Amino acid sequence: MDSQTPAYPVTYRNRLRRRHDRGHYDHATVHAILDAAMLCHVAYVIDGQPYCTPTGFWREGGTLLWHGSSASRMLRAQADGVPVCVTVTHMDAIVLARCGFNHSINYRSVMAYGRARLVTDPAAKLRAMDGFINRFFPGRSAVLRAPSAQEIKATSVVEMPIDQASAKIRDLPPHDDEDDYAVPAWTALIPLRTVVGEAEPDPRQHPDADRAAGGIAAYRA
Amino acid sequence: MDSQTPAYPVTYRNRLRRRHDRGHYDHATVHAILDAAMLCHVAYVIDGQPYCTPTGFWREGGTLLWHGSSASRMLRAQADGVPVCVTVTHMDAIVLARCGFNHSINYRSVMAYGRARLVTDPAAKLRAMDGFINRFFPGRSAVLRAPSAQEIKATSVVEMPIDQASAKIRDLPPHDDEDDYAVPAWTALIPLRTVVGEAEPDPRQHPDADRAAGGIAAYRA
Ligand SMILES: Cc1cc2nc3c(=O)[nH]c(=O)nc-3n(C[C@H](O)[C@H](O)[C@H](O)COP(=O)(O)OP(=O)(O)OC[C@H]3O[C@@H](n4cnc5c(N)ncnc54)[C@H](O)[C@@H]3O)c2cc1C
Ligand SMILES: Cc1cc2nc3c(=O)[nH]c(=O)nc-3n(C[C@H](O)[C@H](O)[C@H](O)COP(=O)(O)OP(=O)(O)OC[C@H]3O[C@@H](n4cnc5c(N)ncnc54)[C@H](O)[C@@H]3O)c2cc1C
Ligand code: HEM
Ligand code: HEM
Repeated sequence: MDSQTPAYPVTYRNRLRRRHDRGHYDHATVHAILDAAMLCHVAYVIDGQPYCTPTGFWREGGTLLWHGSSASRMLRAQADGVPVCVTVTHMDAIVLARCGFNHSINYRSVMAYGRARLVTDPAAKLRAMDGFINRFFPGRSAVLRAPSAQEIKATSVVEMPIDQASAKIRDLPPHDDEDDYAVPAWTALIPLRTVVGEAEPDPRQHPDADRAAGGIAAYRA
Repeated sequence: MDSQTPAYPVTYRNRLRRRHDRGHYDHATVHAILDAAMLCHVAYVIDGQPYCTPTGFWREGGTLLWHGSSASRMLRAQADGVPVCVTVTHMDAIVLARCGFNHSINYRSVMAYGRARLVTDPAAKLRAMDGFINRFFPGRSAVLRAPSAQEIKATSVVEMPIDQASAKIRDLPPHDDEDDYAVPAWTALIPLRTVVGEAEPDPRQHPDADRAAGGIAAYRA
């Protein structure tokens, strides 16, 4: 890696030990993997018990954000600046080989570390929630009924500046030990993909509703 | 839920607080969501720091298993019976609404709790690893070159009997506050699906390799 490339600092916490050739710490690689996802898994601890909660998230610069109910145990537990680990995973292929040991999975994943804190200012919360919507559906917040003060109050927004992160990527065809090519087991790469299906429009669609407004056009018919 | 239905015990740890109508604790619902996945996220703690690691897994009865390098920090940290949380998530649809607050996601997820321990007996490790392969590719272990003693030694297998678990399912069309149906925002359910792509056979395929052997035929051409 070029020493000019901005990268996250590497310590015991985020240094890959196994297959470190698959590791990346530069912002560009980490952010690209994060931005290809809407879903993350957040690990946090309550009374020594680890929890791993799936949740929607988005990125603004070097900060990850997620949201939910102000009464959520997860978000309450995360409000106090406790350490969390946010993981994003794309499973790209199953890799078959001629022995079990050489079976594998192609993937891209990020583990990001930091301390979460609540966004408390109502105007900042509103901006953040509009940002969440527009991140996935550009311009959509403008065509929606705006959030009420009550809705903003009921919503907790958590932000986590990324202190450290690691990306790990496997993108390789099947490979076997030279002797094993004599084994007649059928061998292949089996790609997996997440696809956006055909939208099911709301039966109560407004007659003036414009599908192209709010970035929806980009999603599959 | 019928009191005859076998279910995981519910305590502070796994009781849903928000949207508890979406919660399920019976074995059948929890196991069906687990069995629809190959990937989980495991949360565990080292020195107070939570980690969330993506990994392949499989289920045998009420026990979850995963594997990796005997030198893996994750597996070493989990060998001592520490508490872990294993989460499996299927993201089924994005739900658009006429205000931000009513946007949502349809999903099925499980959070399972227990203490992980190493499978140490080599014969049991071998059985477990054959079980992993055959779980996804029925019969495939029989057509592969068998694992060597050295490979089994290099492999750690972890098993976690499920002490408690919760499933959460959202499977609802868009819905809005009655007043908001006057808002002309285009509204729909956008389904998401993971699809198995066309297999890319190994260029060094053995001439006698039989695609139908080892359960591969079930996967897409
Ligand atoms: C694909 C996906 C996207 C999601 N996106 C969001 C989002 O953007 N915002 C948001 O607020 N929530 C989201 N959720 C729901 C989220 O996982 C939590 O259920 C919710 O945040 C309530 O969290 P809590 O800790 O307060 O739950 P509580 O209900 O207080 O949690 C208590 C216990 O309930 C069980 N539980 C809670 N959630 C789940 C779950 N999802 N699956 C299985 N068991 C569970 C666990 O055992 C947990 O320890 C999403 C879920 C999925 C699967
Ligand atoms: C879809 C998928 C399936 C996988 N299946 C398996 C499996 O079945 N068996 C298996 O052994 N491994 C699997 N992995 C790899 C697994 O995530 C770990 O990388 C591996 O187990 C080594 O773990 P470790 O804790 O010993 O890593 P170490 O290298 O010791 O971890 C140290 C640090 O490196 C970084 N790191 C480690 N793994 C990742 C990662 N995946 N993404 C980003 N940063 C990372 C983290 O910051 C971590 O704290 C899978 C990964 C993905 C994405
Ligand atoms: C369905 C079959 C299998 C799949 C999908 C699979 C998948 C994986 C994946 C994704 C990894 C992580 C690689 C990485 O860190 O980038 C891994 C690691 C590993 N697997 Fe498997 N595996 C399978 C079967 C086996 C079997 C049968 C054995 C042993 C007999 C085995 C032994 C190992 C070992 C030792 C590692 C650690 C490698 C290292 O870190 O150097 N696997 N496996
Ligand atoms: C892209 C837009 C959005 C998506 C995809 C989304 C998704 C979700 C999901 C999946 C949940 C969890 C529901 C469950 O527990 O089953 C949730 C909860 C919640 N969301 Fe959103 N959301 C979005 C926008 C918003 C906005 C703009 C607000 C506020 C203005 C908001 C406020 C809330 C609140 C308060 C909860 C907690 C509900 C409860 O537990 O009772 N969301 N959201």
